[in-house]
Amino acid sequence: MSGPPVRAALLAVGDELLSGTTLDTNSAELARELARLGIPVTSIEVVSDDEPEVEAAVRRALERAELVLVSGGLGPTLDDVTRHGIARAFERELVESSAALDDVRAWFDRRGIAMSATNRRQALFPQGAEIVKNRAGTAPGFRLERGGRVVVALPGPPRELRVVWSEEVLPWLVASGRTLGPLAERHFHLFGLSESVFAERAGDWMERGADPRLGCTVKDGVLSATLRAVEPSARSRAALEARAAEFRRRFGEHVYSEDEARLEHVLGRLLIERELAVTTAESCTGGLVAALLTAVPGISAVFREGFVTYADQAKAQSLDVPRELLEAHGAVSREVAEAMARGALQRAGAELALAVTGIAGPAGGSAEKPVGLVWFATSLRGVLESSERRFPPVDREAIRLLAARTALFLGWKRLRAG
Amino acid sequence: MSGPPVRAALLAVGDELLSGTTLDTNSAELARELARLGIPVTSIEVVSDDEPEVEAAVRRALERAELVLVSGGLGPTLDDVTRHGIARAFERELVESSAALDDVRAWFDRRGIAMSATNRRQALFPQGAEIVKNRAGTAPGFRLERGGRVVVALPGPPRELRVVWSEEVLPWLVASGRTLGPLAERHFHLFGLSESVFAERAGDWMERGADPRLGCTVKDGVLSATLRAVEPSARSRAALEARAAEFRRRFGEHVYSEDEARLEHVLGRLLIERELAVTTAESCTGGLVAALLTAVPGISAVFREGFVTYADQAKAQSLDVPRELLEAHGAVSREVAEAMARGALQRAGAELALAVTGIAGPAGGSAEKPVGLVWFATSLRGVLESSERRFPPVDREAIRLLAARTALFLGWKRLRAG
Repeated sequence: MSGPPVRAALLAVGDELLSGTTLDTNSAELARELARLGIPVTSIEVVSDDEPEVEAAVRRALERAELVLVSGGLGPTLDDVTRHGIARAFERELVESSAALDDVRAWFDRRGIAMSATNRRQALFPQGAEIVKNRAGTAPGFRLERGGRVVVALPGPPRELRVVWSEEVLPWLVASGRTLGPLAERHFHLFGLSESVFAERAGDWMERGADPRLGCTVKDGVLSATLRAVEPSARSRAALEARAAEFRRRFGEHVYSEDEARLEHVLGRLLIERELAVTTAESCTGGLVAALLTAVPGISAVFREGFVTYADQAKAQSLDVPRELLEAHGAVSREVAEAMARGALQRAGAELALAVTGIAGPAGGSAEKPVGLVWFATSLRGVLESSERRFPPVDREAIRLLAARTALFLGWKRLRAG
Repeated sequence: MSGPPVRAALLAVGDELLSGTTLDTNSAELARELARLGIPVTSIEVVSDDEPEVEAAVRRALERAELVLVSGGLGPTLDDVTRHGIARAFERELVESSAALDDVRAWFDRRGIAMSATNRRQALFPQGAEIVKNRAGTAPGFRLERGGRVVVALPGPPRELRVVWSEEVLPWLVASGRTLGPLAERHFHLFGLSESVFAERAGDWMERGADPRLGCTVKDGVLSATLRAVEPSARSRAALEARAAEFRRRFGEHVYSEDEARLEHVLGRLLIERELAVTTAESCTGGLVAALLTAVPGISAVFREGFVTYADQAKAQSLDVPRELLEAHGAVSREVAEAMARGALQRAGAELALAVTGIAGPAGGSAEKPVGLVWFATSLRGVLESSERRFPPVDREAIRLLAARTALFLGWKRLRAG
């Protein structure tokens, strides 16, 4: 069936969500997916594993939105009452689906496990419901419609929800004509730009009525921006492409990827592709740069060794940093950062070395060298570059993470330039 | 005022929560705090920055609970409508508080910033509201009562919410007689035990009606268990202490702390306290063990150097691992793990060395040495111990994180035994 664009209400069912032991990440994920389709979310509600509560919440949600997505409470135990609550809200009986029962049984058979009697519950559905297959688990979902309004019940485990959403619900939603989308999007991942500077430079691109719409989120120094066409028209799409080109001109020096948010993966893949041996020389980050880089599958082709030289003695002994430099300039200085990069490059027989030395705090700062001061050096085939950053002295972990990512970004910049 | 124990409803206000760009962590945090007080949460709702929406949600929440906690929407901009929505739900006017205005002004003065006119909005409160001070930001909260039911408005930024909750709302709530608590609790942080094995061994301690109540959460291999008295009586308290003692007997070998969940901090503080120099020798974890340890403030007193020896050549060159061992047993073996620990101890001049070598995948596994196989060795003043683990080959990052924490746990076990 087809109709006008809809609004959505989200409902998450589970005592563990109400007690705060588990965070409701499903609703945020569904909200982002719906935004891509041009469907606004009017409310998110979390309710307990209680049949009348679920019933009442479904009724409320149906008053506010044409599309209600319910996650959780589809398991095999007596606690799982989502199907019962929705049936009551629709005043329908629960009936057993032999097809669904076969699916549940087949799931257990494939794994060589005996199906327990309680799992039979998972083949119960409100009369008239369309079953939504769940390839990732035992709990099938379902859809139930009345008067153009529809409730979709999805499994609670995030991995299952994701599979059921993308394989079953999304295609149905698009085919049903209830959405504008999927709307065309362009993503950009930037480093080295604060949210406020970004907003200032983006200017009226961020206004509410703009087409394309521009949104951004910031995490650990990475700013991820999304441009999204407001409608699926050719005009909106052309405006998106034009804005994307302008975005690249305006922010290009900060954009390290248009598809991969993880800076270490962008740098790591580039190193692997160019067969460029890399090494790390770390003081305040204490191994974080190496740990990030080695998160990249296949990195062993280019990463052989990293150095965590926390004490001056380690810098001298393992990286050949001259003791005179350490004494004259202190460990947190351009001179020592450069000597660390030089020493690591040589010791590891690498072509690119990333060096970091700074003051992560809370102790160790001074007026001249405050907490948050970090020196960086990179050596690309022996050619050194160095620079300092002064991170806000909020907390030790924030400084270390920002410093580690800055080292990766500086390495990426050198490769791009070279 | 005093009265019977209450139920709570939580309300989070913000378009960024509905679009999925920000996760509502405030509600989960408040839910956990309320559980400590014996106050059940009946519902959590997220609504947009829209006055009628906030009004309607507050009305609904007041029907379901005696205590309504609202977070967000107290900022200075026109988007921030929480105070307006609550005022409408209570049919009250908004009035400016000169005392609150002075506080907002003083906040800016202390930081040497000029107060903007929009911040004046933050001194507006529904008539009759009690102002709730916010030491951490510019947005004061407030409390509003009617017929024994009360709404508390809290600032949205999590850091501010936490401060306002613990300094203002919690003491008021306890003093008001609306809670059973704070209920007595005992926490335990365990490593090396799966949730299912824990549940099996805990047996009927986990049943719903048990006193004390036992709950647990699992993250990155750490299992955090809480025993909580169900009421503030002497009998309940005695039962808690008896169960806690029994818990220690039953699970003691896995419990590394009763107050600090972060294993690296437990080990790091122990090392600092004992003035015991530590070093790390890492292959598959690629610097993660060092990065975790150096997250601990003051660790530089005992951590001088770590070794990230990814390639065989690096193991030989920087840790003096004999090439014959590498050839005879392969890099992932007891022999090489022990040689790594031995080499690191000597090179760094440390008293405790933690060594890790394994296969994080996705490539590199074999029938004999599958992805997930990790060898660990510790050397405490030259005395070696080693063991292997086979982690589920789910994904590279999960294996690396589990391996890094296992190395820390094995180090902690040796210190406790020694």
